[in-house]
Amino acid sequence: MRIAVVAPSCTLKLDAAAAVKGIVAARGDADLLIHPQCFLSDGHFAGADAARLAAFREVAADPAIDAVWFARGGYGSNRIAAAAAADLPPAALTKRYVGYSDGGFLLAALHRAGAPVAHGPMVQDVARSGGEKAVGRTLDWLAGGSPEALEPGLGGPAFAFNLTVLSSLLGTALEPEWNGAELLIEDLAEHHYRIDRMMFHLTGQAGVRRLRGIRMGRLSDIPDNEPRWSGDAEAIVRDWCGRSGIPYLGHADIGHDAANRIVPFPLRDG
Amino acid sequence: MRIAVVAPSCTLKLDAAAAVKGIVAARGDADLLIHPQCFLSDGHFAGADAARLAAFREVAADPAIDAVWFARGGYGSNRIAAAAAADLPPAALTKRYVGYSDGGFLLAALHRAGAPVAHGPMVQDVARSGGEKAVGRTLDWLAGGSPEALEPGLGGPAFAFNLTVLSSLLGTALEPEWNGAELLIEDLAEHHYRIDRMMFHLTGQAGVRRLRGIRMGRLSDIPDNEPRWSGDAEAIVRDWCGRSGIPYLGHADIGHDAANRIVPFPLRDG
Repeated sequence: MRIAVVAPSCTLKLDAAAAVKGIVAARGDADLLIHPQCFLSDGHFAGADAARLAAFREVAADPAIDAVWFARGGYGSNRIAAAAAADLPPAALTKRYVGYSDGGFLLAALHRAGAPVAHGPMVQDVARSGGEKAVGRTLDWLAGGSPEALEPGLGGPAFAFNLTVLSSLLGTALEPEWNGAELLIEDLAEHHYRIDRMMFHLTGQAGVRRLRGIRMGRLSDIPDNEPRWSGDAEAIVRDWCGRSGIPYLGHADIGHDAANRIVPFPLRDG
Repeated sequence: MRIAVVAPSCTLKLDAAAAVKGIVAARGDADLLIHPQCFLSDGHFAGADAARLAAFREVAADPAIDAVWFARGGYGSNRIAAAAAADLPPAALTKRYVGYSDGGFLLAALHRAGAPVAHGPMVQDVARSGGEKAVGRTLDWLAGGSPEALEPGLGGPAFAFNLTVLSSLLGTALEPEWNGAELLIEDLAEHHYRIDRMMFHLTGQAGVRRLRGIRMGRLSDIPDNEPRWSGDAEAIVRDWCGRSGIPYLGHADIGHDAANRIVPFPLRDG
């Protein structure tokens, strides 16, 4: 299996790349091709939009590549997502794409184009405490579809998104059709009032109200609110699910951490 | 003229209330009725949702009140906006409503219900440097429709919103119909990458692409980006206007500051 790594958002760290190369070599079940674009830097991004787009389009179109693994998140995949997923050749629609966080913009675009995509740990996650397990989970799943790598207990078609990223793609051409699916959300370092505002936004969408339900992954590293917020993040999610009539389905094992599980999106005709 | 003050978001400070009472008394052209709800505190908010909603409904329905002035922003008017604007009595649809920032959620709901609303300085703005001028602008406009209080140079129907608030109401029942209008945006203390992400979100909406154009108010107190962001906020607004085919119409004199001008929304049948 040949896995290509590109960075549609921010620059991959050299030590993370080296660590994951070592893990893949020790496993012996895959070839890892880290595209040089991953190490470009242009202000906030892993190279200019054109460079990030070109690298993605190159590996997506390559019939010798079985999977495209996003190097890391940060911010910026929305700037190239529509162009990245436009007019994909057949070779791009049969390989798998894995990432999360800011990569959710690109996953959404590829999903709409008919490609098989999954929320899951990225290369840079190796730098987390326990990060070898995170990247191993993605490699296990790409190698053999390992069921232990997957979010357990899903009741049917499911999507997983960073809440901030999802909130920012609602109403755009990237938004999935939600009918009957479960939606798993996670986020990092957003204040309670921002989570509340995003849940208002999310659950106020007519299309989102056609979900089968919402599951809450980890909403971690929430900064202190001034004044103190009454209640916790789960109370916020429950409140807006209740107000909007969307069933709250409980917890999900996803988040910005080493335990983050894989959630394949449902396949869709492009 | 009788002006009622309520706080649909966060608690009004006592000293700001006293200062504005003094200004109104010295002018002698209005009675200011500061609703006691303005000083309630319930976690983040100026009282629980029910208390904020009840105070708003009370003054909106009162035929003896000519205008409702929002005390301040912060966060929370979205939590009561739909209920606040539902089934309004005739007396609520002939008075004017003024506020901005988080108050934009409530302005949007009242606009959709057919009430005359305007973006403009709030009571708490008196605490800013030069804040007497800001509150004086709203009082001038309420008293006599003073044209100097208004954003100059508008070419027709116009809306003004805090970019973060607007981004959070897109696709909900609060979103205005944009056809042919100008949209003025402003924001406070959002990182460049967040401004970029919100402009992606805003300009990616099919309805928003029917605007006559976008004007940029002040996007102030932008925190440092790590790594440094290339370019300034205006370059971001121009970029997304260009990508989406929405004309960029230049600057607007609105923002979280004492110079903030008044922008009446177009009237709409409820």
